[in-house]
Amino acid sequence: MPTDTWVNETLYPEWGQRFLVKRELARVKSDFQDIMVFESFTHGRVMVLDGVIQITEMDEFAYQEMIAHVPLLAHGDAKRVLIIGAGDGGVLKRVLQHRTVEKAVMVEIDGEVIRLAKEFMPGIAGDAWTDPRATVIVGDGIDYVRQAEAGSFDVVIVDSTDPIGVGEVLFTDEFYANAARLLSDRGLIVNQCGVPAMQADELRETALRRARSFPDNWAYVAAVPTYVGGFMTLGWAAKDASLRQVPVEEIRRRADVAGVLDTTRYWTPEIHVGAFNLPPYISMHLPR
Amino acid sequence: MPTDTWVNETLYPEWGQRFLVKRELARVKSDFQDIMVFESFTHGRVMVLDGVIQITEMDEFAYQEMIAHVPLLAHGDAKRVLIIGAGDGGVLKRVLQHRTVEKAVMVEIDGEVIRLAKEFMPGIAGDAWTDPRATVIVGDGIDYVRQAEAGSFDVVIVDSTDPIGVGEVLFTDEFYANAARLLSDRGLIVNQCGVPAMQADELRETALRRARSFPDNWAYVAAVPTYVGGFMTLGWAAKDASLRQVPVEEIRRRADVAGVLDTTRYWTPEIHVGAFNLPPYISMHLPR
Repeated sequence: MPTDTWVNETLYPEWGQRFLVKRELARVKSDFQDIMVFESFTHGRVMVLDGVIQITEMDEFAYQEMIAHVPLLAHGDAKRVLIIGAGDGGVLKRVLQHRTVEKAVMVEIDGEVIRLAKEFMPGIAGDAWTDPRATVIVGDGIDYVRQAEAGSFDVVIVDSTDPIGVGEVLFTDEFYANAARLLSDRGLIVNQCGVPAMQADELRETALRRARSFPDNWAYVAAVPTYVGGFMTLGWAAKDASLRQVPVEEIRRRADVAGVLDTTRYWTPEIHVGAFNLPPYISMHLPR
Repeated sequence: MPTDTWVNETLYPEWGQRFLVKRELARVKSDFQDIMVFESFTHGRVMVLDGVIQITEMDEFAYQEMIAHVPLLAHGDAKRVLIIGAGDGGVLKRVLQHRTVEKAVMVEIDGEVIRLAKEFMPGIAGDAWTDPRATVIVGDGIDYVRQAEAGSFDVVIVDSTDPIGVGEVLFTDEFYANAARLLSDRGLIVNQCGVPAMQADELRETALRRARSFPDNWAYVAAVPTYVGGFMTLGWAAKDASLRQVPVEEIRRRADVAGVLDTTRYWTPEIHVGAFNLPPYISMHLPR
């Protein structure tokens, strides 16, 4: 039954987006956060964590494609991928779309996010949960990276909440040092770094921390409709600076080999290459 | 005095952004629309027309730079520029920043928008109003293009509201036919075409109309924080398809000659070139 209830995002106290709720589907207080899932009129189903929009069925493709395809295709030989967070399973799906990937480990701290995503947003992950290459661990990402074997992954993708609340530990010096250790020689890590027009500190401060453990540091951008405020940035920390300078034709060739070319709605080889060209209002926040 | 009043944008009935109002500055019913100007906590001063956010001091640079610099530098020899709408004066300022421009005519239908922008948002236009190269006409853009001499402009920039209400006539077959006539041989027109994630019809339908008068049709994108919903599109209609394929080094050279290089916060030569690479979810709406 339609309601006249609006969900007001509370990420910023003085500006934000709001959704008219068609139907509330779930409201759970997990050990870590408040989780809400509702059906909107405009964006399909929407998941909210502690008042912050995490994912909508309408536009999740933009975020998932850019956080998954860009690091994997920039690396070019990513067989072992570690995903931290991303409890909805959308990053896992996009990673496993690459037939070149042999192993994907996903570590999500909040099992309730996985459970609710499976129940109410099953299209986000599709068959990824049962893919034989996937290992899904409900546990602490910070512990996982502490214990992981050196050189055991090629790419790490951190799809966390902002560096407040439960996601905060995923932006520390210790986390990045462990990430550098567990990555192979040409390994790289990407993580979501917020919307610089509103959250420039998030990009600036976490980039400084990444720079303590990785020689090559930068960011790339994606325009994700429900992460309102213009471009969001994805932080980029790599052992090899050439990974973000791969020519467009080589990216296209790799995407073809991986089986992801022409499957996307946001990512293209040209957008991949162009995403590293930052507007000055964003690049000014990166360390020189 | 701070208030606890929120301004809810009413562009879409079931989703939108909201601003906490620090101070209301003006609320006017003009002959054409309801105009409101307020001071926000997050975005500086904000102008709202008929419930739709038009401009904020915080992020106007992104939109203005992309709607002005891209067509002028793509053309490469734009001396005569016609601006329709853009009553805040921001596009006029960015156009006149090009020392290569000899004449800029701005036609805004609503004199109240100009008056309120001058009074409450004077930084948007700066000194543009009194530049000897500028002619500011309060009048009907549709009449102006009907009467303009053939070949009398090199670039037309349409910075209107969406094709509803007062802006609707600026998206008709007649308007585009007149624009084609008044443009010189290598002339082109750009116009704001909404946010395709939410308003795909706007891009699709107006692109079809542009294609009836211009041989080369496309769009380019900009991520403007307060035009919420991911990328906004700027429609592109030209007599010469090569204008959107100018190499990045030539764009940089032209920007240097024009005096706009290194003055920008969003536009760069690389972003200029990359903005024509559209995500498939956007390009699918353009005529083939």
